[in-house]
Amino acid sequence: MEVLGVDLGGTKLALAVFSEGGEILSSESLPLGSRSGKEAGSFVTGLIRANLERARSEGLNIGSVGVSVPGISMVRTGTVWAPNIEGWIDYPLYREIKEAAGDIPVLIDSDRACSILGEVWMGNAKGCRDAVFLAVGTGIGAGILSNGEVLRGSDDIAGAIGWMALDRPFHSKYKNYGCFEYNASGDGMARVAREFLEKENDYSGMLRQLAPGTITSRHIFAAMDAGDKLADQVLGQCIVFWGMAVANIVSLLNPEKVILGGGVFGPAVRFIPEITKESELWAQPVSIRKVKIEASGLEGEAAVYGAGYLALKNPNALNH
Amino acid sequence: MEVLGVDLGGTKLALAVFSEGGEILSSESLPLGSRSGKEAGSFVTGLIRANLERARSEGLNIGSVGVSVPGISMVRTGTVWAPNIEGWIDYPLYREIKEAAGDIPVLIDSDRACSILGEVWMGNAKGCRDAVFLAVGTGIGAGILSNGEVLRGSDDIAGAIGWMALDRPFHSKYKNYGCFEYNASGDGMARVAREFLEKENDYSGMLRQLAPGTITSRHIFAAMDAGDKLADQVLGQCIVFWGMAVANIVSLLNPEKVILGGGVFGPAVRFIPEITKESELWAQPVSIRKVKIEASGLEGEAAVYGAGYLALKNPNALNH
Repeated sequence: MEVLGVDLGGTKLALAVFSEGGEILSSESLPLGSRSGKEAGSFVTGLIRANLERARSEGLNIGSVGVSVPGISMVRTGTVWAPNIEGWIDYPLYREIKEAAGDIPVLIDSDRACSILGEVWMGNAKGCRDAVFLAVGTGIGAGILSNGEVLRGSDDIAGAIGWMALDRPFHSKYKNYGCFEYNASGDGMARVAREFLEKENDYSGMLRQLAPGTITSRHIFAAMDAGDKLADQVLGQCIVFWGMAVANIVSLLNPEKVILGGGVFGPAVRFIPEITKESELWAQPVSIRKVKIEASGLEGEAAVYGAGYLALKNPNALNH
Repeated sequence: MEVLGVDLGGTKLALAVFSEGGEILSSESLPLGSRSGKEAGSFVTGLIRANLERARSEGLNIGSVGVSVPGISMVRTGTVWAPNIEGWIDYPLYREIKEAAGDIPVLIDSDRACSILGEVWMGNAKGCRDAVFLAVGTGIGAGILSNGEVLRGSDDIAGAIGWMALDRPFHSKYKNYGCFEYNASGDGMARVAREFLEKENDYSGMLRQLAPGTITSRHIFAAMDAGDKLADQVLGQCIVFWGMAVANIVSLLNPEKVILGGGVFGPAVRFIPEITKESELWAQPVSIRKVKIEASGLEGEAAVYGAGYLALKNPNALNH
């Protein structure tokens, strides 16, 4: 039996046919373009249909389809919420894909859930039953695996770790992001850099040359590589926040692994030793000694691997 | 079928025979005294044996025994770590109780795990599948129920929320307690009061009359009731920490209920509206709107109820 994994990102769509052993037998990746609402849905289901047909013609037996969505998958209703795809507020994705897949089972989960499943299947958390994927990109989220199962919470929105309170007192600027995300996501790094620029009047380095509104995390990493002291200060503060968040994951959940992924890790993987050191200050001492803190082993493909594993784990699929 | 629930506290032992419906058919409570090591073990097993015999003589059919321990229960080894009972570092409690119970199944879990199970069975989290018991006493811990199961982590030490990082930067004084517990456990309240006393030279109220080393959370609550402004300040800060911790539980785990229990809640239940308000500032907005934050519904008996439910949930017991 094979499975089809689909990673529906905010801007692109990746599909891969996996063997039960996790080998990619075929794959494709396409931009989602400006598609929104039902048009985005038809695009996805069309590609799933085409992939299932092609697999069948090649003599493959696709037992199940797994789909990763960039947002929240509501298991009870089969609908998804994906803020980056216009019109996908409570979108009936399950029903649409099920129609395309016929009698092949369909499983849908969030990208953060799929990312940790991917790491557990074929990445740096291979074989773990308790592991967390901390995704730091434009925003921040966590995929939590507990005793082999994705931790969903009562409304499928567990893992909203961008909202973690890490620094007293509350500031109203946290209101739309959460304290952790405000300070330490990709966009957060740029926000913090702008705040530092306002205070550091003596600074005239690389970041001062940019219009403040145009600064991104890329500029900050580049400035740091060039020895810029304000970029250094921003990243120093991010390392404290990332370390505190990792510590809180470890103390509360006692996982075997914490995987740092998302667009920022990426360039921030070089700081994992410093993040680990910061987390060691704060966390439960036995749990932090036992946990391993690592970069993603799948270089941006964790979610599509996880979608494949989601499909494979489905017990109905195994009887198919 | 009935079950026997045993709550082994640090200083006392409570036993109760429960019906399947959660009614207490008989119960007793005894001080553990100064018993330690094997002597404490024999005391516990002796009482379990006596309770099983009495139940049998009364025509009751005890299908299973559940035991709550004040520390950590290592499921794989059957041993427990209970810092308040001398010599119980890696103590073979399962083997000893199993010997006393004969062919009746025995289940052991931590007091925090049992507390949330008790609330789910017969307390304020009745019927919840995702709920958290935040126990604030001398120390701080959390019992986490996720999708109907106790969340254990990979070494049975999940829920060590006293170590939660809530306030930058790290201070070495947190080293033995964790940041949250240092600031907001029962003992933490006394520590913070002592720190405030050192700084507030103008203050000459009730707490100034005590030798600093003798101050306890009781004194602080009593001073607050009498309108003392330093006590007010201590509790104001605790409310912020409790609110941030509740927020982090809610954002990360998306539970239906957070139950506040332990010795401090108790007197601090009056602050639940203020704690809720603080947590609303920080937490994921949908999750915090849906969660209910409440006091324990079992007034200090959550763990013995939970031990009973632990026994009842054991599938072997149901076939007995």
